[in-house]
Amino acid sequence: MIIDFLADYYRDVEKYPVLSQVKPGYLQKCLPESTPHNPEPIETILEDVKKHIVPGLTHWQSPNFFAYFQCTSSIAGFLGEMLSTGFNVVGFSWIASPAATELETIVVDWLGEMLELPKSFLFSGKGGGVLQGTTCEAVLCTIVAARDQMLSQIGKENLIKLVVYASDQTHSAIQKAAKIAGIHPMNFRAIKTSKLTSYALSPDSLRAQIRKDVEAGLVPLFLCATVGTTPTAAIDPLDKLCAVAKEYGMWVHVDAAYAGSACICPEFRPFIHGVEGANSFSLNAHKWFLTTLDCCCLWVKDPSALIKSLSTNPEYLRNKATDSKQVVDYKDWQITLSRRFRSLKLWFVLRSYGVHNLRSFMRNHVKMAKLFEGLVAKDKRFEIVVPTNFAMVCFRILPSALSETVYKNGKLGMVSEEDANEANRKLLESINMSGCVFMTHAVVEGVYVIRFAVGATLVEERHVITAWKVVQEHANAILSTYEP
Amino acid sequence: MIIDFLADYYRDVEKYPVLSQVKPGYLQKCLPESTPHNPEPIETILEDVKKHIVPGLTHWQSPNFFAYFQCTSSIAGFLGEMLSTGFNVVGFSWIASPAATELETIVVDWLGEMLELPKSFLFSGKGGGVLQGTTCEAVLCTIVAARDQMLSQIGKENLIKLVVYASDQTHSAIQKAAKIAGIHPMNFRAIKTSKLTSYALSPDSLRAQIRKDVEAGLVPLFLCATVGTTPTAAIDPLDKLCAVAKEYGMWVHVDAAYAGSACICPEFRPFIHGVEGANSFSLNAHKWFLTTLDCCCLWVKDPSALIKSLSTNPEYLRNKATDSKQVVDYKDWQITLSRRFRSLKLWFVLRSYGVHNLRSFMRNHVKMAKLFEGLVAKDKRFEIVVPTNFAMVCFRILPSALSETVYKNGKLGMVSEEDANEANRKLLESINMSGCVFMTHAVVEGVYVIRFAVGATLVEERHVITAWKVVQEHANAILSTYEP
Repeated sequence: MIIDFLADYYRDVEKYPVLSQVKPGYLQKCLPESTPHNPEPIETILEDVKKHIVPGLTHWQSPNFFAYFQCTSSIAGFLGEMLSTGFNVVGFSWIASPAATELETIVVDWLGEMLELPKSFLFSGKGGGVLQGTTCEAVLCTIVAARDQMLSQIGKENLIKLVVYASDQTHSAIQKAAKIAGIHPMNFRAIKTSKLTSYALSPDSLRAQIRKDVEAGLVPLFLCATVGTTPTAAIDPLDKLCAVAKEYGMWVHVDAAYAGSACICPEFRPFIHGVEGANSFSLNAHKWFLTTLDCCCLWVKDPSALIKSLSTNPEYLRNKATDSKQVVDYKDWQITLSRRFRSLKLWFVLRSYGVHNLRSFMRNHVKMAKLFEGLVAKDKRFEIVVPTNFAMVCFRILPSALSETVYKNGKLGMVSEEDANEANRKLLESINMSGCVFMTHAVVEGVYVIRFAVGATLVEERHVITAWKVVQEHANAILSTYEP
Repeated sequence: MIIDFLADYYRDVEKYPVLSQVKPGYLQKCLPESTPHNPEPIETILEDVKKHIVPGLTHWQSPNFFAYFQCTSSIAGFLGEMLSTGFNVVGFSWIASPAATELETIVVDWLGEMLELPKSFLFSGKGGGVLQGTTCEAVLCTIVAARDQMLSQIGKENLIKLVVYASDQTHSAIQKAAKIAGIHPMNFRAIKTSKLTSYALSPDSLRAQIRKDVEAGLVPLFLCATVGTTPTAAIDPLDKLCAVAKEYGMWVHVDAAYAGSACICPEFRPFIHGVEGANSFSLNAHKWFLTTLDCCCLWVKDPSALIKSLSTNPEYLRNKATDSKQVVDYKDWQITLSRRFRSLKLWFVLRSYGVHNLRSFMRNHVKMAKLFEGLVAKDKRFEIVVPTNFAMVCFRILPSALSETVYKNGKLGMVSEEDANEANRKLLESINMSGCVFMTHAVVEGVYVIRFAVGATLVEERHVITAWKVVQEHANAILSTYEP
């Protein structure tokens, strides 16, 4: 019944408004005030899902979803998740389900090899990987490990002096993780980037900031470098940044949440060149790697640093296998004790696609993004704001196109950058309210850009072409009546 | 195919050795060294699951699993999880899938009302609830909220003075969360409990410790009280503890991870009497509430305290609904940004069981635990170490039974408490290695006890009776040849 329901959902998902059109509070009005006293049949509940839940979904699996970064699903990932839900084991330590731990150590090595991560990040070297829920958790774990390692050298009373570095394009998760870990909020540095470096973090800016902090008596702790930033998919230069960090004995984490997956293709691998100088590396397999939410892969060179910070050994969890030190107990590699059997779905995806088809899957998206970029470039009213990396295109209506309209309409008025931002904001809103497609935005150096992220499992060229037509139609409407 | 596989699994699970019998490293030998280049059919992967994964599972869903606390599954929970995996939406903010947010606010209120939580913890009052992965995350969020609230009053440089309180029976998750949040490791107080209070935290001991800390210039921050501790299901007296904490302006969190679920039964509700004095309350619906892993419900009186610490508002996530402040954005109530649509499975469980059957489910387990307790009590060689709370029995072979054996066998030697511990350890190991049942242990005031936790979805009286026979058989064997 549920399988049929989901099959119908995927058949029809393309027809639904991508962005849900409900108003805040809609659901409260549809559901009873409290839990029923007596059981209700699954059929009744499923009816309510159709009637009340589906209209309130923003359809992330629609091929017309081009917002944020995608959260891809696949039959293999779904089946793996079903099995893991069915077994419902809690593999916090090896003994609590050896297969859950061992399969995880195996698949993170498989994936690490596909990425050509240095041996030092793999169990087959002296490192290792772990599957967590999200990058937020992964980064928190690494900051805590770095923090404790540093404080063990300089004394716990110096927590207040530790500084975390990132760029102003870095995901907000890093700042949040630093704050949770007790890093003083004033000691988070979001270093300015600019169009000159395509919004990549400049090693010189990093060094300058570090020097300033050291002079002020602070202690550089942690650098998060990003491969594929959220606003524009910018790529920080890992090799040079790691070299700077090394001078100051800092921990470097590489956040490749979105773009890391693509690096299994030889043509994208150069973007993580220099990763050998980092301490940890993560990507979200639920983003562009078909595993369904959630599955973040984190590799570290020195698992003992994680374990020192995150291990607990209460008597009620003690067991011979742990005492023997022959096994991995993943509870000591993460924030939480309980953990789902996530490796099963990643294993299903790796095997049922194989390296060849996984590469094709991502290359196909990159090709479609290039197609979209080409369409935008042909329309002189628009500009591509930053070079397209991976499968994301950042574009906007040009201020000049707005000025021209104003002039054509015989009206007066200068079009400022702020006016252009406002026009692009309106354009995006009108596109999204149509329900035909869903895109989101970013602001870089004060410029409002529309992000077009290709990556849905079901997306085809025709969806991309239609999406561009939708953009043009809405742009026409906005331009025809435009006044600054 | 997968459904048939799982149906067979549940049919046969009773016959498998509960505790997996594999040796460390077994799986590496069964699987290839790297990801296949070409796709493999699902049938082949599923064959490998049967052959290589199932033997490496410790079967948490077996009716013969009496270890730790259970992680219950149900058809309703499974179907809800399938739907949420199928939709695969990421409801970090309201706009990203309104139904995911709104259903969550509704079900946490439903469950809160079933627990008769004060209105102040519910959205229908001024509080609210959130579904997170595990108690570890929930406690970390509350410690961070309490920390930032306190530091905003006394200055961020005083982080080093903050103290977190719990009992020596409190789950290790609390100490770990405090450490992650940057609380100085020396400022975690695990206050001693004893058999006199059945291992509940004494309000007098708490007050004495707080006074000492205040005199030393430290700042009391946070108390975690537990209803149903992991070692012995002990119950901290919430009303009195909250009164002490209130005197010092501390945040009180109630960890009812295991036993909270049972409090939907009027006869168990008194165990959370006094919760109105706490700031936050959590239980794991994946433990005793049939939702499958993972689903921790956290309620707070003052959501703004959480939000102040955990909110982020990067430009690329900005939207009109958020700006209107008419909606809940759950990303600001938790560690992570991305989040699974967990409310769906909890909603399925609540409706497909109804209040009546949920209560019966738990009462039935409590009844079976009493049955087991009765069987143990009848055998004079054993003792029930602490009064049985909820559905967990703590028992051991008595030192006197060991002495008697020694005497009967005509041998010499005193039986110390340590000898008794060693004998009980051996008993448990021999029981678990048989594969017939799986139980775990705890140590309280130096006494090794065997924990028998009833709570598997499929457990019936016959399994409990058999489990006791298994214990007796293995005890007979150990006693027959016993020497200290």
